[in-house]
Formats: sequence, structure tokens, C-alpha cells
Amino acid sequence: MNLKIAVLPGDGIGPEVILQAKKALYAIGEVYNHEFVFEEALMGAIAIDKTGNPLPEQTLNLCLNTDAVLFGAIGDPKYDNNPNAKVRPEQGLLKLRKELGLFANIRPIKPYKSLLDASPLKREIIEGADFTIFRELTGGAYFGAKTLNEEGTHASDLCEYSEEEITRIAHLAFKSAQNRRKKLTMVDKANVLETSRLWRKVVQKVSENYPDVALDFLFVDNAAMQIILNPRQFDVILTENLFGDILSDEASVITGSIGLLASASLGEKNALFEPIHGSYPQAKGKNIANPIASILSAAMLLEHFGLFKEANVIYKAIEKAIEYKVVTVDLKPDSKFGTNEVGEFVSNFI
Amino acid sequence: MNLKIAVLPGDGIGPEVILQAKKALYAIGEVYNHEFVFEEALMGAIAIDKTGNPLPEQTLNLCLNTDAVLFGAIGDPKYDNNPNAKVRPEQGLLKLRKELGLFANIRPIKPYKSLLDASPLKREIIEGADFTIFRELTGGAYFGAKTLNEEGTHASDLCEYSEEEITRIAHLAFKSAQNRRKKLTMVDKANVLETSRLWRKVVQKVSENYPDVALDFLFVDNAAMQIILNPRQFDVILTENLFGDILSDEASVITGSIGLLASASLGEKNALFEPIHGSYPQAKGKNIANPIASILSAAMLLEHFGLFKEANVIYKAIEKAIEYKVVTVDLKPDSKFGTNEVGEFVSNFI
Ligand SMILES: CC(C)[C@H](C(=O)O)[C@@H](O)C(=O)O
Ligand SMILES: CC(C)[C@H](C(=O)O)[C@@H](O)C(=O)O
Repeated sequence: MNLKIAVLPGDGIGPEVILQAKKALYAIGEVYNHEFVFEEALMGAIAIDKTGNPLPEQTLNLCLNTDAVLFGAIGDPKYDNNPNAKVRPEQGLLKLRKELGLFANIRPIKPYKSLLDASPLKREIIEGADFTIFRELTGGAYFGAKTLNEEGTHASDLCEYSEEEITRIAHLAFKSAQNRRKKLTMVDKANVLETSRLWRKVVQKVSENYPDVALDFLFVDNAAMQIILNPRQFDVILTENLFGDILSDEASVITGSIGLLASASLGEKNALFEPIHGSYPQAKGKNIANPIASILSAAMLLEHFGLFKEANVIYKAIEKAIEYKVVTVDLKPDSKFGTNEVGEFVSNFI
Repeated sequence: MNLKIAVLPGDGIGPEVILQAKKALYAIGEVYNHEFVFEEALMGAIAIDKTGNPLPEQTLNLCLNTDAVLFGAIGDPKYDNNPNAKVRPEQGLLKLRKELGLFANIRPIKPYKSLLDASPLKREIIEGADFTIFRELTGGAYFGAKTLNEEGTHASDLCEYSEEEITRIAHLAFKSAQNRRKKLTMVDKANVLETSRLWRKVVQKVSENYPDVALDFLFVDNAAMQIILNPRQFDVILTENLFGDILSDEASVITGSIGLLASASLGEKNALFEPIHGSYPQAKGKNIANPIASILSAAMLLEHFGLFKEANVIYKAIEKAIEYKVVTVDLKPDSKFGTNEVGEFVSNFI
């Protein structure tokens, strides 16, 4: 197979971990005879620094015209604590999601057997947990109108959803549930929010097409609790953008490290793959960032193109790295292995 | 001291647990010579059933003209799964918060020594955790304009904040931090939301009055993770309404049961005290609901009126109940004690 892949390393540890993902893909390409052509482009704080624009036209065009996007991380503290910054790195990522129509962000959560003791949660709580979060990615308060009055004393964010936006991701989530344990949990705040009530109504309607999937509802406050109390109860979680952002980071604790979680963002035509961790600027350039999430994103990319065998080889390699404790310090405080060594182990294993 | 207390038992297990809180207050009154006069009123689903209104005029008037409100729980599944319900129990609580101007919801999180093993989190993670969440309670998406178009295909919720709304709760939170470990963590989503950026700006400004308090910022997705990874890092958490709703329920897992957490909601003139658990309809009438959160709300009420010694007696009694394992099934699955027995133990101990 020939794939043209746009690579956006982004900020902080992005470039370091993306490098390891590329190494894994190169190795797969060699062994299984695929041609992966990578083209790098700027996004995020680095793009602002170099061009003034967090998502330069050139980057967007590249992404629109490749088979898939591999993305590192975004964000820089110099923008975070400046509420008056006019341009922010995150705008680049949000615009990219919107322009590529990446409406579904999919985040699988499943602890590795050999890491069951690495989580702050007890082993007996997380053993056997295995669920996937479907987060809506191009709507909600992320994209609604924002206002700030002239005096800078009053601000607003509008959370909006349409039936159509809910329907399309609901179908994906139900289909995924059909291939899994046939349970879908809709998370919302329908006792307070109008948008949540629309979600509930639309999801109920979509569910009629999937009579084999059991549908239930949880309020987001309760869901935030249930994910920790009893993660095994979940199969597929479906939720709106901001709730999904919060819950998926929270759920990462089940696996022992956010450095282990990857995600796929899918649209009608485009697809982007990224680790769910952020740019982790404190770790930049220190060879301590965990590359596994980024390498896993590459595996999700392969799966997306039907290369299941190849993806599996990567999954196996990562399992081995974890089993042999070839991992970074987030998973083993006294580890002598860094970003490079873990990535090297994985690509050598392929 | 003479206190006139409005009692709103509400729905589900509300009446059962409120009864135990009243018993504790009666016992305190007798021993320490205070006169607590209780007046009951309707709110929630039960108020809809009886009057068509989740917050009848009479209830509101009573609450406006008493020293404090003791509230049980609200909510009924028959409204939750009906997105078209015109009147919902929660509207009663939200209206009450607004009318009484209860802008600050304060939720202390601290595990009991003898319950360190009851949490899904490991003992070494939660041991020593002790923080308080200040949740803004009368603004944000809870109270902004809501729309649903005629065809029922498009909905919106407006999240709004003003400098004034942020300033008043920020002062309370900083003052609390001054009396604690002098650290305040502002939780927001300033990389995406305009309201969050206003929060950040205003809180930074308010912080100038509290140079002895260290201020830091966390994005809400990261905060949802950090609360589980390392709860000891927090002292005072300050956040907006919806984030506070989610994070405080999540944080309840640290204590082993949401049935152990109480909250105070304060305004300029009024105060309301409530357990943070919901109406738990499945448990209604079964004498299995944990009354401790409700009794703790009563203790917070006493503290609010400067009756620290009396509040302490309740805290001690609850500690004893937990130590002697006179607790409900949420804390000890094979417990033979119910709501009544736990309440009885506490009031006898006083
Ligand atoms: C960087 C930020 C804008 C982003 C988000 O909130 O969506 C990130 O947290 C994520 O989850 O991908
Ligand atoms: C019942 C509901 C409206 C309420 C809220 O969301 O504020 C509850 O969850 C709470 O936290 O008090």
C-alpha cells in the first residue's frame, strides 16, 4: 500500500515522540512492503513563532491532500497564562479539526496486563476494564460564538449542537458497540443543559437502528465518578466535545499513564491520529517523554487503512516493551530508558 | 442560639437522610442549649407532583426568611429520560440557588483514616489528601440562555460570566486558602473558552490581595486526571459551575463513598447545606442510604453560625461510627446497619 502521511510534530515533546512513530512506520513499511511517504508541516506554537499563524495555509492544504495526518502535541505555557494573547497554538488544532471535518474522536482505554499495578487505582478495580470513548470533536462550546465585552468584564461561550452533528457520531459509536460488548452509555447533563436534552433525544432515535445494543444514560458528574469506581461497567461511551475532553483524560489514569493513550479523529474524508497527552513542555528535549502513545497512534492509522496485521505487530511490540520494562520514567521511576530507547526497541521488534 | 431552619427533604432518599440530620441537630440543641426550629417545605419532583411547581412560592418564601436551609436531594428518573418534560425537579434547586444568591458551593474532600482502604484508589495515593473545592454556583451554562429551535433539531446553552461573579467567589476561596495550606489552584479551559480566560484574568487580579497564597492554573482535562493521580497536591480548588459539578463528584471517590460528602452553598445573606449525593431513587425507602453526608451538612451549618464546638462533636461522632463500622452497605457490603441505625448511633453519641 502507498500512503501519503502529513506529519505535524507540533510543540513541546511532540517532535520527539512523533519521530518514534515514524520509525515504527518505516519499519512496518520495510517488512510488509508498504510505501509511507511523510511530509512534515508546522502547527501550533512553533507555527506561530515562525509564521504568525498556528495553522499556516500550507499545512492545511497538505493535510487536506494526504491520506492521513499524524500529529504530535500542541501548546506552550507562554500562551496559557496570557489571557490577552490574540493568537494561541490551540486555535491551530481546532481549526484543523474543523476544516478536515474530524467529527469523531475515538479513544480506547484498556490497561496492559503487566501494568495493572502502575495505576493509582487498585488492580481489582481496573482488571478487565476495556472501553472506548467516542467524543464529538467539531461542535459544542469549542466552536460556538465567543464574546468578550469592550471593558473586558463579561465573557461568554456558546455551546451548540444540531441533530445532524449528533446523528453522525452516534452511528459510529453504535456500530463500534455492535462489534464489541453491545453496550452504549450516553454521557450528558440532560438535567440542566438544552444541548444535552437534544443529544438524549437524537441518540434515542438513532438507537432504534441498533436494537442489539443496550443504551443507557449517565449524567456527566456521575460518569466522572463511575469511571473510577467501576470502569468495567463501560463498553462504548458517547459524549459531546468538552465532556469527552475531560472524561478521556480522566480515564487515562486507568492505564497507569496518559503516555499510553492514542486517539483517532475521523471525518467523512480525512483522518488524524494523535497521542492524547499534551505538549508537556517541562520534558521537552530531555529524552524522557513516553513515545508509546504516539507509536500507538501510528498503529491506529494502519488499522484505519485496513492494515490490521501490521497494526497488530506494533501492538505486540509495545506489549513486549512494557513486559520487559523497556519504558520511560512515567511508568518506572528508576528507568534508564528514554524516548529514543523505547522507540528503538519497538521498531527493532517489528 | 436560636436558629430557624428550613428543611427541604426533596426526592428519593432525601427524606430519610434529612431525618437523621435533624436528629443530630436536636441532640446538639438539647446538650448545648440551642433552639433549632425546623420548618419543612416541598421542593423537587415531590413538589411537582403535589403543586406542579418544583419550587413553590411558599418554599421560596420560607427559605428567604430563615437562617439557613437544610436540603436533602433532588431528581426522579421519570423526568431524566423524557427530554420533552416541560418542568423538571432540578429547576427547583437551580431557582433556589439563584433566588437565594448562593454563589459559592464549598465541598471539602478528606478521607477518613479508618476508610483509607474503602476507596478504589490506592491507600498511598489518598493518604493525607485534604482539599476543598470552591465551585461557582449561580452562573455559567447552568443559568445562561437556552434555545431549542421549533423543529427540535438545534439546541444551545450559553455559558456566561462577569468579572463581579468571579471576583466574589475568588475572594472566598483565597481567604479559605489563607486559613489552610496557602495554595489555590484555578481550574479552567482557558486554551479554548473565553469565559475561562476571563476567570484567569480576574483571579490573577484578585490574587494580588493575597500575596501569601500561591496561585496556579490547571486545564480542566488535566485537573480531572491530577485529582486521581495525586490528590495531595491540592489545597483549594476554584472553578466555575459545571467544571465544579464534575470534579467534585469525581473527587468523592477519594473518600470511598459519595455518601460521605457534604457541601455548603453560601450567598451574601443566605446559606444552604446539602449532601452532594443525589436522590438515589433505587435506594428509596430501603433504609440503606448513607446518612453521613446529610448529618455532615448539619455540622457545616453549625460551623457557619460559629458553633464550632458543636460541629466538632458531630464530626467526632461520625468518626466513631466509621471506626466502629456502624456504617451502611456502601462502606461495608455486609453491614447490618441501615440509615436509621447509623443516624441513631451518631445522635446517641452526642
Ligand atoms: C489542546 C486542546 C485544545 C485539546 C482539546 O481540548 O481538545 C486537547 O486537550 C485534546 O484533548 O486534544
Ligand atoms: C441536581 C443537579 C442539578 C445538581 C447540579 O448539577 O448542580 C447536582 O448534580 C449537584 O451537584 O448539586
